[in-house]
Amino acid sequence: MALTMPRTMPGVLELLPREQIAFQTMLDTIRRGFEVYGFLPIETPAIEFADVLLTKSGGETERQVYFVQSTGALEQSSGRPEHALRFDLTVPLARYVAEHERDLAFPFRRYQMQRVYRGERAQRGRFREFYQCDIDVIGKDVLSVRYDAEIPAVIHAVFSALDIGAFTIWLNNRKLMRGFFEGLGIGESEQQMLVLREVDKLDKRGAGHVREVLMGEGFGLSADVVGKILHFVELRSTSLAGAHAKLDALGAGTETFEQGRAELREVLDMVAAFGIPESAFALNLSIARGLDYYTGTVYETTLNDHPDIGSICSGGRYDNLAANYTKSTLPGVGISIGLTRLFWQLREAGLVKPPDSTTQVLVTQMDAAQLPVCLVLAKELRDAGIATEVALEGGKLGKQFKYADRAGIRFALVLGENELARNAVAVKDLRRGDQFEVPRAELVKSLRVELAQDEAVRA
Amino acid sequence: MALTMPRTMPGVLELLPREQIAFQTMLDTIRRGFEVYGFLPIETPAIEFADVLLTKSGGETERQVYFVQSTGALEQSSGRPEHALRFDLTVPLARYVAEHERDLAFPFRRYQMQRVYRGERAQRGRFREFYQCDIDVIGKDVLSVRYDAEIPAVIHAVFSALDIGAFTIWLNNRKLMRGFFEGLGIGESEQQMLVLREVDKLDKRGAGHVREVLMGEGFGLSADVVGKILHFVELRSTSLAGAHAKLDALGAGTETFEQGRAELREVLDMVAAFGIPESAFALNLSIARGLDYYTGTVYETTLNDHPDIGSICSGGRYDNLAANYTKSTLPGVGISIGLTRLFWQLREAGLVKPPDSTTQVLVTQMDAAQLPVCLVLAKELRDAGIATEVALEGGKLGKQFKYADRAGIRFALVLGENELARNAVAVKDLRRGDQFEVPRAELVKSLRVELAQDEAVRA
Repeated sequence: MALTMPRTMPGVLELLPREQIAFQTMLDTIRRGFEVYGFLPIETPAIEFADVLLTKSGGETERQVYFVQSTGALEQSSGRPEHALRFDLTVPLARYVAEHERDLAFPFRRYQMQRVYRGERAQRGRFREFYQCDIDVIGKDVLSVRYDAEIPAVIHAVFSALDIGAFTIWLNNRKLMRGFFEGLGIGESEQQMLVLREVDKLDKRGAGHVREVLMGEGFGLSADVVGKILHFVELRSTSLAGAHAKLDALGAGTETFEQGRAELREVLDMVAAFGIPESAFALNLSIARGLDYYTGTVYETTLNDHPDIGSICSGGRYDNLAANYTKSTLPGVGISIGLTRLFWQLREAGLVKPPDSTTQVLVTQMDAAQLPVCLVLAKELRDAGIATEVALEGGKLGKQFKYADRAGIRFALVLGENELARNAVAVKDLRRGDQFEVPRAELVKSLRVELAQDEAVRA
Repeated sequence: MALTMPRTMPGVLELLPREQIAFQTMLDTIRRGFEVYGFLPIETPAIEFADVLLTKSGGETERQVYFVQSTGALEQSSGRPEHALRFDLTVPLARYVAEHERDLAFPFRRYQMQRVYRGERAQRGRFREFYQCDIDVIGKDVLSVRYDAEIPAVIHAVFSALDIGAFTIWLNNRKLMRGFFEGLGIGESEQQMLVLREVDKLDKRGAGHVREVLMGEGFGLSADVVGKILHFVELRSTSLAGAHAKLDALGAGTETFEQGRAELREVLDMVAAFGIPESAFALNLSIARGLDYYTGTVYETTLNDHPDIGSICSGGRYDNLAANYTKSTLPGVGISIGLTRLFWQLREAGLVKPPDSTTQVLVTQMDAAQLPVCLVLAKELRDAGIATEVALEGGKLGKQFKYADRAGIRFALVLGENELARNAVAVKDLRRGDQFEVPRAELVKSLRVELAQDEAVRA
């Protein structure tokens, strides 16, 4: 029979078991952080009605969406298929909240950690199927700006627990930004976005190039205006007092500008009140987020030692989540972590260490006659919560040790005739490379102590 | 603007947050059971190449598969799309093992808990998108029948922990069954399957009807042969000794029959050696599993008090997992839990109680002036691992209590002027409906004690 080449689609990240354990640990840590801040889990189906997903017809989004058809539908269909895969978790959230509005308590605090799908051109570091880990707080009619300050506290808890190095949560406010541009006579939001897109090239192309473009035919801005824009977007703070001072120094502005500044001040003060150290958050007036969607506070997060990785957690405040599905006004604020991309980048940067296996103990088998004793021992370990595999196949002991070592299993137990005669178990610690003997009755206790030390190191 | 009706595709199970918590608890429990038995996690992409998924062309499977196309592909394509969604976790496992064979340690023990997709006709209790929770042990060239005995031990651990009532793990062996039919002169496996399909209707149609069909034109079996078949498939045991006695009583058979009987005896004995009580497993010679795929041991699991739900966990032994992708011989054994369907059935039967929220404490807000104190308190609770929400919006205290109660949050804390003056916190236990005061310094300790009692009850 002809073989089919086993392979995955480009643009997916499939992991070997130990990498998967590292990934799963990150997922668990993020989930724990979300839960400890009082966010509730939801999951939505990957397949949605295409008309529900694509309420804003046309554009970039629709070009990237994956449509879904069963064989029956394929045979009959003409035109756009009825179903599609979600391309983010925000549109499904909007649909979920609108659909279940009567059954939810508001403010509705949800977390969602699922895969999303985008038919992008395959490219290194770009994924077509990837995890997003999102939180959002959705209000009914109103949602205090205080919730905007809680989001950085969650980000701080999650990334501290992930232990991937120092990070900075950058804050800005779209009203401040919009008001600033209005003050310069750039009133249209589309025009503002075009200017910001050029400003985004500062790092890559340099100030000279950006200045030239903004003063050129397309934009026709004066040297004075361009100077003000470049000054504005370069504003950063290194302390809370510094942030307030820099916001003061911007001088008076339009009503929108003043509203944005007041919100930003309140959010910054309250982030500190949440107990987040000043070293972990800062003002950054260049943060805009591509989406028209955000209307107030916006966030980005970067790793201090890996600025090249870009933002690892972004989001912001929006006025109305589900205007396409319901007449209710549902303001909200949220962020998203693109975990697949982050994991891939950390791995590329050598920052993902292969963890131990989830399996903590291998009970080796010297001799089939001892197997029943091995099984009783394994049951005892498992009942005590110790993840245990029995080498049921048997074979040479050296090969069994090698298997354990390769799989990242820390302890290999040997129950030979000698050990049985002494009512003891030989314990080989494959991490430390040593071996010791424990009385049979003390095995569970002894292993628990060793493993608890691991837990303590990890926590 | 015209609103789009927010709705999900028929055949998906979308849950409200508290139901999702109950579902997530089941997923976590299953995962813990799999890990404690030494199974390693993998995840595979939902989207695979269609030619990889559909190596066995045509048939029922292909009719149910969902094909996937991006807009670009839709515009250009004719013929079968290049990509499709997985319809189970077994084909992706075969592809995974064949693709990563050199990087895996064998026997490879993997668990996988992901959603699968089937374009079925929508029907009550039938799902188009649902979770499967699978374990498999894959050997290279060989895999001892001992692994067949380990699977019921895992099933036992998992369903005991799920705490959904008494269950029975039914065992049979396809070789025994095949050998038995050969002995009756029914040698072709296709013919055997047809007979078994009729026998499967025993419960619904009664023995009279089945007997009639098997003796009728289509099959033309003698009354004697039909009698033997009905006797065979009705064999059950209630104890290990009983199982052996009933296997003895079957008399001598073909070589395949004897091989199957020997395997079944070994597996039954060893399941007992794994420490599984005799009340939890039994011989059942009617278990065939629809798939041609299985070649030795087969399993089904039923809830003793809900036989109507059918098998909640099924699987078996197969000779070669990945013959479509590799020349390596990869025998294996595994089972699958269809968790979405199980959860739905348990809920229908009233067996899913709404659990408490993952959020354990709501810090209420009486007055914005006290908010900073509330935030410090909340941070302390969170740092102690207690999942805490702060009522940042404020409002009437009664409304805040109502919110906590509705959301299933057990404790609401009140930090009013009076409490602050006494350096104390008022704790309202919404489950018990009482209220008490705790000195501020002892709050974390006191809540931990209460919550630990909950944990103890759950464990």
